Order: sequence, then C-alpha cells, then structure tokens
Amino acid sequence: MDREQLSAGFPEDAPLVALRRGALVESVHRGRVAVCGPDGETLEAVGDPDGYVYARSSAKPFQALPLVLSGAAAALSLRGEELAVACASHNGEEPHLRAVRSILEKAGLSELDLQNGAHPPLYGPAAMELACSGEEPRAIHGNCSGKHAGMLAVCVHQGWATGGYRHPDHPLQLWILEIVAQICSLQTDEILLGGDGCGLPAIGLPLQNLAAGFARIATGTLPDEMAEAAAKVRGAMREHPYMVAGTERFDTAVMSGTNLVCKSGAEMVFGAGSVEGWGLALKISDGGERALRPTTLAALSRRGVEVPGERASSPVHDLHGEVVGEKAPLF
Amino acid sequence: MDREQLSAGFPEDAPLVALRRGALVESVHRGRVAVCGPDGETLEAVGDPDGYVYARSSAKPFQALPLVLSGAAAALSLRGEELAVACASHNGEEPHLRAVRSILEKAGLSELDLQNGAHPPLYGPAAMELACSGEEPRAIHGNCSGKHAGMLAVCVHQGWATGGYRHPDHPLQLWILEIVAQICSLQTDEILLGGDGCGLPAIGLPLQNLAAGFARIATGTLPDEMAEAAAKVRGAMREHPYMVAGTERFDTAVMSGTNLVCKSGAEMVFGAGSVEGWGLALKISDGGERALRPTTLAALSRRGVEVPGERASSPVHDLHGEVVGEKAPLF
Repeated sequence: MDREQLSAGFPEDAPLVALRRGALVESVHRGRVAVCGPDGETLEAVGDPDGYVYARSSAKPFQALPLVLSGAAAALSLRGEELAVACASHNGEEPHLRAVRSILEKAGLSELDLQNGAHPPLYGPAAMELACSGEEPRAIHGNCSGKHAGMLAVCVHQGWATGGYRHPDHPLQLWILEIVAQICSLQTDEILLGGDGCGLPAIGLPLQNLAAGFARIATGTLPDEMAEAAAKVRGAMREHPYMVAGTERFDTAVMSGTNLVCKSGAEMVFGAGSVEGWGLALKISDGGERALRPTTLAALSRRGVEVPGERASSPVHDLHGEVVGEKAPLF
Repeated sequence: MDREQLSAGFPEDAPLVALRRGALVESVHRGRVAVCGPDGETLEAVGDPDGYVYARSSAKPFQALPLVLSGAAAALSLRGEELAVACASHNGEEPHLRAVRSILEKAGLSELDLQNGAHPPLYGPAAMELACSGEEPRAIHGNCSGKHAGMLAVCVHQGWATGGYRHPDHPLQLWILEIVAQICSLQTDEILLGGDGCGLPAIGLPLQNLAAGFARIATGTLPDEMAEAAAKVRGAMREHPYMVAGTERFDTAVMSGTNLVCKSGAEMVFGAGSVEGWGLALKISDGGERALRPTTLAALSRRGVEVPGERASSPVHDLHGEVVGEKAPLF
C-alpha cells in the first residue's frame, strides 16, 4: 500500500452501530472488522480489512513480550499480576498502582523514571478521590504506567540506557518493531510509526495483520521461544484480567467470561485472539467509545462467543430512567 | 418522507473531520451541513440536507419563545440574563444557577418544581467542586434547568398545571410544536417527536428546515408578533452569551465573537443564524463532540465568518506536549 495514498484517504468502512431515538436513527458509528486465522487467512471482514490502523494500546500484549524474551521477568521474579499490568491500560486503582510500583522497585527504579506522562486515573471514583485529595495526577496514575515500568525493567536487565527508552531508535523499540513485524507477518518497513499519547511509537499496520497477530498470540502458532513468551503474556492477562483494565472495564469482562485474550486501545481499536484458532481486530472509524462494546459483542457472537453479563444491544434512557431509544449493532 | 424509511435508514453523510497521526488518517467523523435562506432556499449542503435530525438542545431558542409570546417574561420582569439562561445548555456555574433560581422565584416556584433530571454540572471544575463537597447533583445543576424554569414560568402565567409540563400533550408542548412548525415551514405532523434526555419532547425535523428556522430567528423574517419574540430571544442570547453556555464553551465563543445567534445540542447538532440572511444547521453523524468545532468553523468560514480565538484545524498533542497529529476539517 502506497504511503501517499494512506495519508490522503481513509479505508472503506461500514455502519456498525446505530443509536435509535423514537422513530429515527439519531446517530451512527461506522468502522471495520477483520477476523483472521493464525496463518493470516482472512475469515471474515466488514469494511476494508487491508486498511491501516494504529494499534495504540491494543499493541500492549506485543510490546510486553521483551519483558519475557529478555529474561527480565524471570530474573526479577515478576508475578502474574505484574506481567498483566505491563500489558494494561489500567484504571489507576490502588492494586494497579501497587503492581506498577513493585515492577519498578524490583528493577531498582522508582515512579520518577516513568516517562508515560500524567493523566487522572481512568476509573472515575479513583480520579475523584485523587482530585478531592488535592494531589495532582502523576505518571504512575496514567493508564500506560505498567507498560512503561515493564519497558524500564527490560532496559535495566539488558544494560540499556533508561532515559531514552521511548524513542523509536532505542534498541528496545527497534526490538518491539521486529517482534510485531514477525508476529503480524509484515516487514518492519511495512509498519508505520506515529507518536502515541504516552510518547512511545504508535504501531500502524493493516487491520487484518493485527487480527492475525492476535490469533498467533492466542494459539501460540509462533517459533518456539516466541510461542513460550506469548503463552506467558497470554496466561498472565487471562489469569489477572482485572490488572489489564479494572473495575467496569470491557477487557476485564471479556477475559473474565470467555477463553479469549484481548486488548482495547485509544481511538477504539480492539484485538482479541481465541485458542480455537482465530483472531479479531476492529476499529471504530470515529473513535467513539460507546460503539466498542456493541461492535465487539456482535462480532464475537458471530464467532459463537458470548460475554456473560454483556449485551450487544442496550436501551437509551433519559434522566428520569425512561427508555427513549436503543443502541444496537447493525451487522 | 416515510416514517418506516426513516427508522430503517440514515441520511447520506460525508467525511467532515479527520484526525491525522503521523502518515495516517487515524479517525474520521462524518456528518451533514445545510445552509438556508430565510425563504427556505437551500444555499449550500454537505450530505443530505433533507434527512431528519433531532434538534435536542439546538431547539432551545425555539422552545423559549412562549416565554415572550405569552407575556410571562414581561409580567415577571425577566432580565436578559434570565431569558438567555432559558435558552441555555448551561455549565452549571454559579451565575447560571442564580439566574435559574431567580426565574423560579419570580414565578413563585422553587428548584423542587424542576423536572429536567439531575446530572453533574457540565463545567468540569464546577462538577469537581460539587463532588468534593459531598453534595449530590440536583436538577438545577442540569444543563437544561433554565429551559425548564422558563417553561414553568409560562405555565404559571397561563394558569396551566405545572406538574405535567414536560408531556407532549401539555398545552405548552403543543404550542411549542406549532411554533417550531411555523418557523421551520413544516406541518406539525411532519415533525417527529422523540424523548429528550431531560424528559421533554425531542424535536425531529429535516436538517435544512432547522437551518431555515435559524435564518428566520436571526433575521426576524416572521409574522409580527413572532418576529418581536424572536428579536427578544435573539437579543438576550447575543447580549449574554455566557448565560447560554459558559466558560470554555463553543456557543459562548461564537456569539461573543460574531454577529450570529447559535445553539448546539446533544448528539452534536448545531444551528446558527446570521442577520445577513442565512441559517446553518449541521449534524455530526456519530455524535462526537470533538468534531463540532472544526466542522462549524469550516462551515462558517465558507460564509465569511471567522470566530476570534478559534481555529478549524488544531494540533493533536501527546502527554509530553509534543505535536503528534492534527485535527482538521475535510470540506
């Protein structure tokens, strides 16, 4: 795919979610879905599966692999919770902060070494508690602090400089680029790097390659050493789904109630992999968060996967609790 | 237009705003724009101008007209600030609450009579202050409390029951339906009513009729009594733009810096009228708030209107303050 075309256009998408109010469809969210096997075969698609997306936080399971591959996780005796939080867009709840601090301490570092940038905890009550205490949000409260702590631990283990770990030419980021290319069947120069919110490279790749990557992470259809590392990351995420997101979060619900490994990210890109031999990746074109659950639940339902406690369609209420509409998938 | 068609489909829209990151368009917002003269002629359109939208809070200037037409505003000596807050989706800042309380007191009522439902103040610092004080949000903090206070004042003035004022068959709501139909050149049965968030009827009408309605409100191209009422509402909104929205709000910026009268509303419908003889209405298809400013500023710029301090394109920053992308209009 030509880079100039990419920058000029936007991949073909399709209506995925409607918000109905009374007799009208009031709003609509468009997007794309790709389902692939671990061999890269596209099993199903809505919209253009070949169009690029930035995986953003959806790439965190891939970005955490050096923590295992380098031997840092073993050398530091990282617990499952800690490996899981290194793959997280966490809520900034107390257990998340404890796990991040623990990774940093084991690596001989502190939260002052984190370079993910500060924002309030994603979980509303945690954000409120911090704000009402008068404390400013710090990097550790940011949803990416586990990923950054994990990256710092790799740097310490490898004897690499920790100051510049988030730059695209740092050996860790070059290694991650190679890992993503390998798992997603791309050449490194087919991956487009942008700048992510936390200052790391944002990984741009075709939607179907992200889906195939999740299929391989889930099934371990990878060279031996990579398959073992993927199994450790997948196992930690699935055993500790709360650490990957947190209270009321969708990724936590999906991994708690199904056999999937999954990760959502900014601008509403979501990836999931099944041991049954497929991976799914989707993108809400407008980045609208409210479209993610109905789209994902509808797409998973087509694969025979239901998430307990979650429904693809949901009523829209007014402030008096009356039902005035419905949010529902369109595919 | 057939109602069954309406419920099945969604009007043709077009890409309006792109979020670029690095080499890629990461996300895109679609929508529709219509510009009409006061005679109803469509001067310009992006997407289908005939497709329906719910005006939601964009209809507030229309819904406030009975306050003037009934004589209630004059009888209660409502000040400009109070008439403006009756047209508002206000921030819940202290001056807004004072004005709403004042309307209610002048009508012999209290905030207990408000039926707009409770939600935290729209303005973050006001919401934070309320939450940290331990107080629960009440109806008066809701962005619609001025509109509801104004409606209650009309009911008291007319000798109508105040308990059921928000039901579609209450004489006030029937009157508003006739007013909207008249100003927007529709039959009342061409207007589709849904349920709005605050429990009032949500007014569904073709986008171009909403645009024409704003043209007429702005120019006074209306029968005498209605033209006078529109002039009072328009004058109050333009003299007190802070009361219509508040700190950091777009409607306030537009009316402070241009000769327009304007009102935005839920699911990102925006209407504006110019004394120069046109009205504009637009809808962001996905309801994404971040697309409203770039779309509106681009559409206004095509009419020769620039909003001081506002730019249609804006950089996207990471958490370190680095520019990693751009949000920009596509038309």
